[in-house]
Amino acid sequence: MRLSKIYELVQEDLVKVEEQFRLLVDSQHNTFPELHKMLSQILVGGKIIRPMLTLLAGKFYNYNLQNLLPMATASELLHIATLVHDDAVDKASVRRGRPTINKIWGVDRAVILGDYLFARAGEFAAATGNLRVVRLFAQTLGAISRAELRQGFSAFGLEQTYDQYIERIAGKTASLFAMATESGSVLSQAPEAAIQVIKDYGYNLGIAFQIVDDVLDFVGTEKEMGKPVGSDLAQGTITLPSLLLLERYPEDNPVKRIFNNEGDGQKNMIEALELVRNSSIIEECYQVASGYSTKACSNLHLLPDKPGRKALFTLAEFVVARRK
Amino acid sequence: MRLSKIYELVQEDLVKVEEQFRLLVDSQHNTFPELHKMLSQILVGGKIIRPMLTLLAGKFYNYNLQNLLPMATASELLHIATLVHDDAVDKASVRRGRPTINKIWGVDRAVILGDYLFARAGEFAAATGNLRVVRLFAQTLGAISRAELRQGFSAFGLEQTYDQYIERIAGKTASLFAMATESGSVLSQAPEAAIQVIKDYGYNLGIAFQIVDDVLDFVGTEKEMGKPVGSDLAQGTITLPSLLLLERYPEDNPVKRIFNNEGDGQKNMIEALELVRNSSIIEECYQVASGYSTKACSNLHLLPDKPGRKALFTLAEFVVARRK
Repeated sequence: MRLSKIYELVQEDLVKVEEQFRLLVDSQHNTFPELHKMLSQILVGGKIIRPMLTLLAGKFYNYNLQNLLPMATASELLHIATLVHDDAVDKASVRRGRPTINKIWGVDRAVILGDYLFARAGEFAAATGNLRVVRLFAQTLGAISRAELRQGFSAFGLEQTYDQYIERIAGKTASLFAMATESGSVLSQAPEAAIQVIKDYGYNLGIAFQIVDDVLDFVGTEKEMGKPVGSDLAQGTITLPSLLLLERYPEDNPVKRIFNNEGDGQKNMIEALELVRNSSIIEECYQVASGYSTKACSNLHLLPDKPGRKALFTLAEFVVARRK
Repeated sequence: MRLSKIYELVQEDLVKVEEQFRLLVDSQHNTFPELHKMLSQILVGGKIIRPMLTLLAGKFYNYNLQNLLPMATASELLHIATLVHDDAVDKASVRRGRPTINKIWGVDRAVILGDYLFARAGEFAAATGNLRVVRLFAQTLGAISRAELRQGFSAFGLEQTYDQYIERIAGKTASLFAMATESGSVLSQAPEAAIQVIKDYGYNLGIAFQIVDDVLDFVGTEKEMGKPVGSDLAQGTITLPSLLLLERYPEDNPVKRIFNNEGDGQKNMIEALELVRNSSIIEECYQVASGYSTKACSNLHLLPDKPGRKALFTLAEFVVARRK
């Protein structure tokens, strides 16, 4: 099954998610033109992998679009809201190849726009009429922001372990993937055992996805990723590639120099990127990611044999096949 | 009825709200010491008028503490989360007489802490088990952030009307007061007509409360208010006193000079504060506030004659009796 086949399964309903975004943007057109502009800037493009997960997860029992659609929309809106705040906090200028909200309108407006998006995401979650997914939504925002705080407090610190890294990306990324899949299965009245399988799928897929994202920050190009290369190191964030690099060269290491602000910052960055690219670190990272991708699929055989199941397998392959 | 009498009615349960805050703070003690410190800094003190409103609003029908307690906690947490973001955006250093989160930990951490507090507030709202109040919660965050964005976009603009001012404080403050009272009545199974009366009470009380707050920003002292005098003007925010001052002196006016960055900023500020203080503007503002306070109470006679009703009347008097 190719990726286009996955899309085929949910394409029609993904279009409806995008339609929800368009309505959200349009609703401000006459009453608040500045907000309308900000929403237009941020609610286009993107991978919309999260709403796809919610819809796919709903494909095994009672596929109820009326409830799945608002939750799929909420999954993506919550993601976008956290991106707006991340970029504001990181002073990032580019995202998805476009200028960030904080770049155009300043950090202050970006903070409040993010709050507004949280609110609208929460309204969509509540529109499912299901308290369990509403609770899950709030818990997920809690997990994401707690992990972001952790990341902030450990920035430019070299004493970080593999377990701390996994815990951090679990909070930052996997929690939202797990919310997307769990909510889809809950809203389609899946039995508890199936919900657990689908939730675990989302969680492990999220870990794999983030590891690959962290690798691409070392090996990609700004054009491919829509944001500058090496931004994690520049922000003082240790990810799996830099963790492995620190293990490999515990004495003189460009990551150490970057974090301790020693020597020429740009030279250090180039050296760090080169060292990672020209080593087996990249392959090691992909192996770790593949392990999580495999784990994601390990219990999918317990789900009903429907086209959605094959799609979840294919998606798991695709996530760790992303290369520069 | 004196204010202490209002407290008596809900005091015991307000202590339980504070207990929820303490549990929230303590929950991070061992696992995330920095977050524990931030929460300790922000979750103490304050007027807790919003949880009081939720509890009082629940006093007319089926007072169900199990549902009212999480909502009362959510009301205050939502308020605190927005304050954390407001202070971060305004670069405020002092709040409630203590250094702000952004002053101690920086704007970036304050942004993410605010997100974390929204999440926990949302979890408390969901813990009521009532979808209507969950929706209301999300809508309220939407109204607050939309009004904050408006305020940001109109900052240092002189072309503002009385209606725009009321709309702004309705979004910023009255929406949360109305949520506090509406949710309390919904959770106590009040009939729709009574819910409307109690919701309108909260809304109009919120407008009155904010007008008085805006006056105190001109006539109070930093010690009394726990934040610097004149901060609205310094942020470029027109409130009722400056609106009336601009009407009164349409030509040469210190507010105009402050907003257009003309002349000595500090001299202009002192002049603006003096002009307002030595005029009838303050009394006019209190009259407008009193009008809203009276309006808040206009339908309370439709509620059952219980001690809570007298408390709502007294609270409405108290809100507009706050003087420097």
